[in-house]
Amino acid sequence: MTADNPFESLPRNAANHAALSPTSFLAWSGGVYPDRVALVHGTLRRTWGETYRRCRQLADALTRRGIGKSDVVAIMAPNIPATYEMHFAPAMAGAVLNALNVRLDADTLAFMLDFGGAKMVMVDRQFAPVMAEAIAKLDTPPVVVDIDDPEYDGDEAPIGEIEYEALVAEGDPAFDWQLPEDEWNAISLNFTSGTTGNPKGVVYHHRGAYLNAMTNAMAWDMPTHAVYLWTLPMFHCNGWCFPWTIAAKAGTNVCLRQVAAEPIIDAMARHRVSHYCGAPIVHSMLVNADADQLARIEQTVHGLVAGAAPPAAMIEGMEGIGFSLTHVYGLTETYGPAALCAKHDDWATLSLEARVEKNARQGVRYPTQAALTVVDRETGAEVPHDGETLGELVFAGNIVMKGYLKNPEATAEAFEGGWYHTGDLGVVEADGYIRIADRAKDVIISGGENISSLEVESVLSRHPAIAASAVVARPDDKWGETPCAFIQLREGETATEDEIIAYCRERMAHFKCPRTVVFGPLPTTSTGKVQKYELRTSAAELGA
Amino acid sequence: MTADNPFESLPRNAANHAALSPTSFLAWSGGVYPDRVALVHGTLRRTWGETYRRCRQLADALTRRGIGKSDVVAIMAPNIPATYEMHFAPAMAGAVLNALNVRLDADTLAFMLDFGGAKMVMVDRQFAPVMAEAIAKLDTPPVVVDIDDPEYDGDEAPIGEIEYEALVAEGDPAFDWQLPEDEWNAISLNFTSGTTGNPKGVVYHHRGAYLNAMTNAMAWDMPTHAVYLWTLPMFHCNGWCFPWTIAAKAGTNVCLRQVAAEPIIDAMARHRVSHYCGAPIVHSMLVNADADQLARIEQTVHGLVAGAAPPAAMIEGMEGIGFSLTHVYGLTETYGPAALCAKHDDWATLSLEARVEKNARQGVRYPTQAALTVVDRETGAEVPHDGETLGELVFAGNIVMKGYLKNPEATAEAFEGGWYHTGDLGVVEADGYIRIADRAKDVIISGGENISSLEVESVLSRHPAIAASAVVARPDDKWGETPCAFIQLREGETATEDEIIAYCRERMAHFKCPRTVVFGPLPTTSTGKVQKYELRTSAAELGA
Repeated sequence: MTADNPFESLPRNAANHAALSPTSFLAWSGGVYPDRVALVHGTLRRTWGETYRRCRQLADALTRRGIGKSDVVAIMAPNIPATYEMHFAPAMAGAVLNALNVRLDADTLAFMLDFGGAKMVMVDRQFAPVMAEAIAKLDTPPVVVDIDDPEYDGDEAPIGEIEYEALVAEGDPAFDWQLPEDEWNAISLNFTSGTTGNPKGVVYHHRGAYLNAMTNAMAWDMPTHAVYLWTLPMFHCNGWCFPWTIAAKAGTNVCLRQVAAEPIIDAMARHRVSHYCGAPIVHSMLVNADADQLARIEQTVHGLVAGAAPPAAMIEGMEGIGFSLTHVYGLTETYGPAALCAKHDDWATLSLEARVEKNARQGVRYPTQAALTVVDRETGAEVPHDGETLGELVFAGNIVMKGYLKNPEATAEAFEGGWYHTGDLGVVEADGYIRIADRAKDVIISGGENISSLEVESVLSRHPAIAASAVVARPDDKWGETPCAFIQLREGETATEDEIIAYCRERMAHFKCPRTVVFGPLPTTSTGKVQKYELRTSAAELGA
Repeated sequence: MTADNPFESLPRNAANHAALSPTSFLAWSGGVYPDRVALVHGTLRRTWGETYRRCRQLADALTRRGIGKSDVVAIMAPNIPATYEMHFAPAMAGAVLNALNVRLDADTLAFMLDFGGAKMVMVDRQFAPVMAEAIAKLDTPPVVVDIDDPEYDGDEAPIGEIEYEALVAEGDPAFDWQLPEDEWNAISLNFTSGTTGNPKGVVYHHRGAYLNAMTNAMAWDMPTHAVYLWTLPMFHCNGWCFPWTIAAKAGTNVCLRQVAAEPIIDAMARHRVSHYCGAPIVHSMLVNADADQLARIEQTVHGLVAGAAPPAAMIEGMEGIGFSLTHVYGLTETYGPAALCAKHDDWATLSLEARVEKNARQGVRYPTQAALTVVDRETGAEVPHDGETLGELVFAGNIVMKGYLKNPEATAEAFEGGWYHTGDLGVVEADGYIRIADRAKDVIISGGENISSLEVESVLSRHPAIAASAVVARPDDKWGETPCAFIQLREGETATEDEIIAYCRERMAHFKCPRTVVFGPLPTTSTGKVQKYELRTSAAELGA
């Protein structure tokens, strides 16, 4: 075929091509459902019409202050309306959102603001002290905008030069914003919560954010006007792209400053919440909540869980309280979820144990992701679908980041061979579903044998006295490494190291069983993941 | 910002970019739900796994026969499994599908095969005679493949050199097909059913087909595993992109050779159909069907209607039989539907008449279409949202064709000023919803005043004796034109010209009322639209 083939010589133009951008979803809901409630926050109700107008206004205010294409605007705030608006307004001005993790320390925050080159940062009053400390470390500090959230009941003083509402008021609500010229343009910057070294800056583009936002609704069958509770932090992979999903479905965002059982249940009951997302810890919180409180929730609530495979007790517990849980999988580099454990009707008839095993898998690619598979770490070849051959999980497609900011080496390494390398190890089962065996660095190598810490944890999770566990490598003179289990017991329960080890030996190969058991609460990251890095340090300190 | 801005210097690569193509949805359903039924046709059941394998096989067979990028493969068949597979296999080989309207005559078909340059054509036995006649007119006839559908019970003899199943068997089911290099590549060719002159060849690309397919499900809240009945011809705008939608949702396609009330109701009841689409005539057929038959349908069935605004009686009738109807709007040039009358909760409390008026509007853009508005035909400026100022409906965005094949003049005219010009005239109401007043050529200009034929038809539709009506211009010496109403009465009902005119005069401005009334059945096009062109000819023959 020649270039002047009549089918291919029909070029793009303003009438038949537009950049894919999730900002267009806000314009849609603002235009079609102007009077529907978009945001609920305490006593505040804001409609889609208001939200769209306010975002245009803020986009104009940013533009007037010289913020434009690829400039970074950061925010340090919990899940409040300002954080939601910030997922649209900077993008409508061509700028890049950097939502900061509110649990980070001043040094890390200073690194992020400096590395990203933030020109402006919005700071919720609660986080003024740590941000003041972070900003003081910078050579070129950004413009600081205070967010004076009426639902904040603390005493911290503002630190900025202007309040958020005053900034919004600087703009014109009729601002004639434009879609990006190129859907490949950056829309946000999200730092990885790496446990070693400096965090890497993951860059998202409009196209990927748009497709992932649509796919969240598609893969989850989320209906129009869903009521979504913000348990998952918006600073975490842009809330898995759900700020944009909810705009696409003209849903209602129920904001939440504090993630705890009581306010979650109260919001679910009061606002008839239909959907929410979170790490396993969020769902566990609900399963273990007061039954009378839970009884207030009359509707079916749909939850997405990621961050770790949902343990049996949680899936059983969620079923018990009438919730519907779906397991998704992804990383910061894949806009949050880019795979899901798509359910099959016939799983419903399986035993709980078998069903849990099916549902706990990472599953299959999102329908809009081009590929997800497991490759041999040496040869790069896809592993057989035998449920046994271990390899690295790799993705390819539109739900993969642009790359790491100012880090060509890490970018090249991540994209080696035309795949995004997750660093997670797993297998492909006979039905094509992926199951993670472990993070590469979480594999314990004992006497030359690989031990999956997840496998050991899975056995421990069935012990009636154990609330949570994490297994890491402890250095060992003879075996190289041995499994060391950190165990948090259920309230009122007791157990001894010997009992635990005996329990494991009855249920799995002896070389895989913990040689050491340490009791106590497990340290978790700001996103609810167990901090295995800290535990590895503790295990190392126990000596070889 | 410079080109080496660190946010923008992260290029596309095989790991983070893939062409958007609806073929990927088939790979998804084939991989994730291999054992679910994809196609039902008579006693045949084919799973997603089989369908994916067969399409790969056929794609390979086409490739082996030298069919590749931008080559046209045509099909002349009703809604049977082969037609469904043809929405994937040629695209997987890089080729372009041209699905022909089975009601066309040999001359028109010959024009289409010649103009599109079809290299191969699949012919269902039922249409062998007309196709033999069409092909005989061609200088370079395509390879002819017979489709010997087991559900065809007629006597027509095959005309091709190979049967469809034998062609499929020439390919390798493990064929390593690829996504298109560029999502802008052509995926299909659909001729407009223009009533004057030669039909124009509308070219669709992979990107648009992908986005429209996703949006069909999104805008309609179509769930995973929907059961879709093929009442809408697949040759009509590629079945409004629903072959691809159903693959994306791993639904079930219920095929149907013949669109008539009895087989439709039987299929709906037997297969628990949840969704279907069609022109108003399809829905009317159901509303007027036997109540005992309809009672067999226990589930809620969701219908999309387009092609003309649904009249009051139909909306009322659909409610009466427990169906849920949504009005969508689009043209061949917009992949079928690119707008929908998005419902609002509070409409449910309106009177039937008010609700019908709301639901009968063309509505708002699909969430993935960049723009839909009404512009002044002289100045090109957007008209005010006053429900009165008439202008032309225009679209812009990704759900607009590449252009017209080998017709740069028509393409340039259609895309003038950065809009796709629909040729439909309408207004924007206060809530931003579009309402079509008329096709430009359907406006009747009487004494210098514009009369919307739709408005007159809308009044007529409420007359208890009238089953269907169409109003066109009749030449008039004094007024230039006057409205002439063609009326089809309900069975057993009678009415006179005077009664009809009096009825109208009570309900609308006198100058808008029909001056002439002609009783009889209305001629319809192959897609169920009333053939106003024929009626205009009849009206002209009545004389001035």
